Amino acid sequence: MNTLKIAYIGMGYRGKQLLALTRHIPYFQVTAIADPEAREADYDVPCYNQGGDDYQRMITLHAPQLVFIASPWQLHVTHALYCIQHGCHVALEIKGGLYLHEYQPLIEAAEAGKKKIFPLENTLFRQEILAMHNLVSAGELGEVVYMRGGYRHDLRNLLLDDQGNLGNRKKTESIWRSKFYQQENGDLYPTHGLAPLCLIAGIPRKDRFVRLTTFSSKPAGLYQRIRELGGNPHVPVTQGDVTVTQLETASGTLVSLTHDTTLPRPRSLDFEIQGTKGIWQGEQRRIYLEGKSPHETWEADTAYLQKYEHLYWQQWGEEALRIDTHHEGMDYIMLKALEAEMKQEIPYPADIHDLALWTSVTPLSIQSVAEQRTVPME
Amino acid sequence: MNTLKIAYIGMGYRGKQLLALTRHIPYFQVTAIADPEAREADYDVPCYNQGGDDYQRMITLHAPQLVFIASPWQLHVTHALYCIQHGCHVALEIKGGLYLHEYQPLIEAAEAGKKKIFPLENTLFRQEILAMHNLVSAGELGEVVYMRGGYRHDLRNLLLDDQGNLGNRKKTESIWRSKFYQQENGDLYPTHGLAPLCLIAGIPRKDRFVRLTTFSSKPAGLYQRIRELGGNPHVPVTQGDVTVTQLETASGTLVSLTHDTTLPRPRSLDFEIQGTKGIWQGEQRRIYLEGKSPHETWEADTAYLQKYEHLYWQQWGEEALRIDTHHEGMDYIMLKALEAEMKQEIPYPADIHDLALWTSVTPLSIQSVAEQRTVPME
Repeated sequence: MNTLKIAYIGMGYRGKQLLALTRHIPYFQVTAIADPEAREADYDVPCYNQGGDDYQRMITLHAPQLVFIASPWQLHVTHALYCIQHGCHVALEIKGGLYLHEYQPLIEAAEAGKKKIFPLENTLFRQEILAMHNLVSAGELGEVVYMRGGYRHDLRNLLLDDQGNLGNRKKTESIWRSKFYQQENGDLYPTHGLAPLCLIAGIPRKDRFVRLTTFSSKPAGLYQRIRELGGNPHVPVTQGDVTVTQLETASGTLVSLTHDTTLPRPRSLDFEIQGTKGIWQGEQRRIYLEGKSPHETWEADTAYLQKYEHLYWQQWGEEALRIDTHHEGMDYIMLKALEAEMKQEIPYPADIHDLALWTSVTPLSIQSVAEQRTVPME
Repeated sequence: MNTLKIAYIGMGYRGKQLLALTRHIPYFQVTAIADPEAREADYDVPCYNQGGDDYQRMITLHAPQLVFIASPWQLHVTHALYCIQHGCHVALEIKGGLYLHEYQPLIEAAEAGKKKIFPLENTLFRQEILAMHNLVSAGELGEVVYMRGGYRHDLRNLLLDDQGNLGNRKKTESIWRSKFYQQENGDLYPTHGLAPLCLIAGIPRKDRFVRLTTFSSKPAGLYQRIRELGGNPHVPVTQGDVTVTQLETASGTLVSLTHDTTLPRPRSLDFEIQGTKGIWQGEQRRIYLEGKSPHETWEADTAYLQKYEHLYWQQWGEEALRIDTHHEGMDYIMLKALEAEMKQEIPYPADIHDLALWTSVTPLSIQSVAEQRTVPME
């Protein structure tokens, strides 16, 4: 049987989820795991847990063809570069890089070694996003003029422990993730909201971003919660509760991107796609198409999305929803898309250049807030 | 019986609506109407229709105590100033002024003559807005951090005639309103979205705007529609389809304001109020209050809004919904609020200074787009 030897670096919350799903796909043969906390008894494959660099021994000994990297953010590029330089393809968890231009050595190494880097941005694979991509490509919304999206997800419980201490939940991403909230102020996590918008509008293939400007509210949400939990209300927090980034494209499309992770709220990606012939609101799962919908009246998007159902979901939708109940099938579809790419059947819809573009919003937004000005994106 | 002599300047679409409603309120005695097209046979009161200045004769002859001004935008301040200088209070239709600092003579004249100017911003009087004002004042959302609102209303049918000619619907606001779309690029109509947000967050009484930045998409919506209708696709259009203005307050609250009037869509004011203890989405009529709502789950806002129902709606809500079916009661409540103010019973919730602040968004946003920069608001 045609199989692929894979390995994992990073076995936190996300690594565990992906591992469980890859084990449902016979093509992926899990050969080893590297994580300082991983125990063989838990995973039934060799675990490389002798410190932070033990993943290198794993790569040497197992020579996996594809490595899934789900380590803390600040290690993503280091780990990816090592894997690429040692002959592996890489599936790179979000968010990927933190700084401008840090992908350049990775891109060069990948090109030199003919290796690929696949961004694991699961929101690209949501059923309604892929269907909207087809619907927009078919011209149903006309010319796209405005788009909105964001990462609006209350992370206070991840960032604070039960006594209101920031960055103190042991052995969780709380430890490293909270540091960004104490040192930065910008869109810390742009890709979940932005990547689908880029896919749908063909950015950067048919249009390109020319500049962005970011605005940030005060940081009040963590303080409120710290006070409620009895923690230290004098701990420094730099990250505003809500940041809004306006991105402008060369063709004149306007994109509003929100980062909103420290206020109490139900989660949302807040998608809206608006064109000269209609509008779709992803959160409300509703659509309005001029001449098709009743005058000025929203319709449920179900019938339209069914008509434009993506090939991925036609093929694997049923099993995706059955197996990946945690993320409404999108992680499973992502892994099947990766399989299809590795088998040279269907190209994966994003690459390292897309990831570099999406993640550049973090450093550029931080710069924009700090300098209170628009910054160029090209 | 205690009554007030009122008159109207401007008997277009809005003037007619307001006239019909004031006639339901015995306190308001309609004495005269000035409009070049108004005929006494239609309105059963003296009509001053001998050209654009005939309103002056009406003021002299009838000496109304309060004048409703619902003329085209560019005449609002001129008409208001004349009325104030001739001893009348003024109820001024939106949008009011067009330029910065043009209210100053009006403010001075009003103060000198002890006359009042009431902005007729009806969205302030929406049932859910007034209830949210109470709910936020009671601290239910905690500290307000982020707000969103806008005027999202497809006006293509008003701006274009049935053959796709811009500004050509005879005897309608099409004639004058379309000129702004051919000469400006900014938020042309900010008050419907902004005024309620200001009311709820206590701007400028408890907080103040310090700057704004506006972004504008390409203008593609009118062109699309003109082509469909067979009009001239080479007509100049300057106004972008979607403008987004970011307003920042001194306390660190961030406000996103949208103007979106030339794309096909169901109308929306797109309200969202987000604080350290919860969030409300007006379009979806849903709310999430930490510790009250089920974890990360939206609730219908009905019960909360009922609890915080505003005095106005307690008193007049039933008759408002019965009499003012066109605007869900808000115009009627607005007129009753005006009556209560004139009788010195309940203060009207906005004045000329509020109107000056709200409408300043138009010239400042146009400047911000043109110069691609942030502009100060104080």
